[in-house]
Amino acid sequence: MNIVVQKFGGTSVRNLECQCQVMQKVLRPYREGNKVIVVLSAMSGETNRLLSLACEWAECPDPAEADSMVSTGEQISCALFAMLLKQQGVNCRSVLGFQAPVRTNDAFGKARITAIDSESLMNMLQEYDILVVAGFQGVTGDNRITTLGRGGSDTSAVALAAALDADVCEIYTDVPGVFTTDPNMCTDARKIDRIAYDEMLEMASMGAKVLQIRSVEFAKKYNVTVHVRSTFSDEQGTIVTQEDETMESVLVSGIAYDKDQAQITLVHVMDKPGVSAQIFSPLAEKKILVDMIVQNPSKDGKTDMTFTIPRADVKQTINTLEKLKYEIGYEELTSDLNVSKVSIIGVGMRNHSGVASRAFRALADENINILMISTSEIKVTCLIEDKYTELAVRTLHEAFQLDKGPVEKP
Amino acid sequence: MNIVVQKFGGTSVRNLECQCQVMQKVLRPYREGNKVIVVLSAMSGETNRLLSLACEWAECPDPAEADSMVSTGEQISCALFAMLLKQQGVNCRSVLGFQAPVRTNDAFGKARITAIDSESLMNMLQEYDILVVAGFQGVTGDNRITTLGRGGSDTSAVALAAALDADVCEIYTDVPGVFTTDPNMCTDARKIDRIAYDEMLEMASMGAKVLQIRSVEFAKKYNVTVHVRSTFSDEQGTIVTQEDETMESVLVSGIAYDKDQAQITLVHVMDKPGVSAQIFSPLAEKKILVDMIVQNPSKDGKTDMTFTIPRADVKQTINTLEKLKYEIGYEELTSDLNVSKVSIIGVGMRNHSGVASRAFRALADENINILMISTSEIKVTCLIEDKYTELAVRTLHEAFQLDKGPVEKP
Repeated sequence: MNIVVQKFGGTSVRNLECQCQVMQKVLRPYREGNKVIVVLSAMSGETNRLLSLACEWAECPDPAEADSMVSTGEQISCALFAMLLKQQGVNCRSVLGFQAPVRTNDAFGKARITAIDSESLMNMLQEYDILVVAGFQGVTGDNRITTLGRGGSDTSAVALAAALDADVCEIYTDVPGVFTTDPNMCTDARKIDRIAYDEMLEMASMGAKVLQIRSVEFAKKYNVTVHVRSTFSDEQGTIVTQEDETMESVLVSGIAYDKDQAQITLVHVMDKPGVSAQIFSPLAEKKILVDMIVQNPSKDGKTDMTFTIPRADVKQTINTLEKLKYEIGYEELTSDLNVSKVSIIGVGMRNHSGVASRAFRALADENINILMISTSEIKVTCLIEDKYTELAVRTLHEAFQLDKGPVEKP
Repeated sequence: MNIVVQKFGGTSVRNLECQCQVMQKVLRPYREGNKVIVVLSAMSGETNRLLSLACEWAECPDPAEADSMVSTGEQISCALFAMLLKQQGVNCRSVLGFQAPVRTNDAFGKARITAIDSESLMNMLQEYDILVVAGFQGVTGDNRITTLGRGGSDTSAVALAAALDADVCEIYTDVPGVFTTDPNMCTDARKIDRIAYDEMLEMASMGAKVLQIRSVEFAKKYNVTVHVRSTFSDEQGTIVTQEDETMESVLVSGIAYDKDQAQITLVHVMDKPGVSAQIFSPLAEKKILVDMIVQNPSKDGKTDMTFTIPRADVKQTINTLEKLKYEIGYEELTSDLNVSKVSIIGVGMRNHSGVASRAFRALADENINILMISTSEIKVTCLIEDKYTELAVRTLHEAFQLDKGPVEKP
């Protein structure tokens, strides 16, 4: 049995016309003799409508009840789509989270898939040619409905593809694929044909919203080949897959950025053992995601400690650290909200050293000052003043000739 | 464990304000130490909205998919109501058809409850003080969502009360109870304090929309005392219960009517054995509900056959019978759409003969011609010209002094 998984987002199913277009995509592999699993999101706007209704009813809506309510969005889009297919004479049915079942833990609102009953789904595939599966939702061990968090339908699709050993998992979206950088920021941005899971993870974590980050982790873990492509055209999109030699021969795959950053500096911190823990443990407890951390070389037993956090967490961070001023022992806390991160990403830089310096030179040539630097095996990130974000992205995109197709190693 | 079942319809949960009012009703038995099962309908208008959406998508929406879609109405109202209660600190949860589970057959759109897992619900009642159960919905043996048909939430409530051996099943509605007749038609209509299941069945089948007829059958079968009352006041409503002596001492309980009727006459039918079967079997096959049937005394081996059907089925009935004209052997088919039924209902008339004649006399006094008559143990029905419906209802209501409280037998 050849199985194709296709996932369509809220924009793609938002009305009858769009669903008819989606149907054409679905009927193609079906007519080629494949069994098709169609994973759908709620019609766009519906999830937000339901959440705001919940917020009218209660200040802090009970998360389990909110999930039961919000999951109706996918329930409706799946039923409607199955009706459309049935009318075409297709032997199909809708499958909700509890019907598959897609088991999750009980972290309502951001549940994680723990198991998918592939036997039950395989039985359904014996009986039906197309299953229209509700994305974004699952069910706990004791049958309470859960949702997987924003963009969770991507994860549903990848998890189903993994469980059913599908030939391919196509994620349809409103863009043609994954780009070398944000096309809204850089008109030279080019669609990437193939990208490694790790690169995609870095792109995704920097705000490239094409794929939910968790779905990429899932795909990597279970080695599911994901094809990101457009609902509104037939062109090939981007294949997200295992790293291979061709990919390694490419130096840089893309430029990502994140404007939602703030920089915090603790001035003249006592440079004593355990001070980092004193600073960052309380922030971790508050679930504040600290990213780049730089500690200046110590001078007279004192040091400056600088780090970045999401902009939304600035107030809470300042509050938390000011309460601990004497305990930690710092002189002053400064914050800067006008910063952003720009990253160069590529598995090819793993065994190549020239990438960082080439990037620094390109930024320097445009007089863009680098406030902080952090590097990983496949990424170089620079913190810069946020007014330079667009310029930096375009500069780096050009420096690595991403507009000209994959940059081979020199 | 004392269990109270309360059911609220769509009007009662249509917005936040109404749900807050409902909450007060629910909190009363809860504060008295009872466990409460709250059965809710969808917010009013929602079921129709979903059905018309389905009809946009498909000419004949697949009934299983339509059920999955329409059931979201109750899913949402239950989640919202549970949020409200939770916010008051009540230990509660929503329970969907598949979670209870309420098992049904697979007659999608008009499913019948086959079993309710009382053990599973009792376990939930150990853990929670209030269960907010979705009315109108159930689940088949293989976990597909079903709905019970219009007004099915009443049946859900009664079935739950039966399964859990509840002390009372309160059906809250937008009227104060069951009336001696339609108050919109007769200003003297009076709320009935107690009514027998059989009387209620007759009232319900004649279009008194306070209770769904199936729920009354269910209540009768499992001997569940139902209290029909208003969401918007605290006054006692109508108790629907087993017949008792007090009831039998009352001659007539109410006057019902049904304007949705048509009369069909086959003129000069060959009066031969089996002719009735020849006429009515094909109609039964088409699920046309034939009600009153009158066969005139035979003359020259021929007779006239007159019967009533719902007005919506007139075309289909005529088509069906015209095709069989020569087979049946009748001369002419006439139809009359301007008729309606008026009924006098009461268990007390079982062993009393004067009711029918008193009714006929009253109608005659107003020059209302009776086209057909049918009687049962507890009902006398007259078919009349429909322009006289209101007058007939008021006349009969007055003739049996229903405005003056229960009419004792003479």
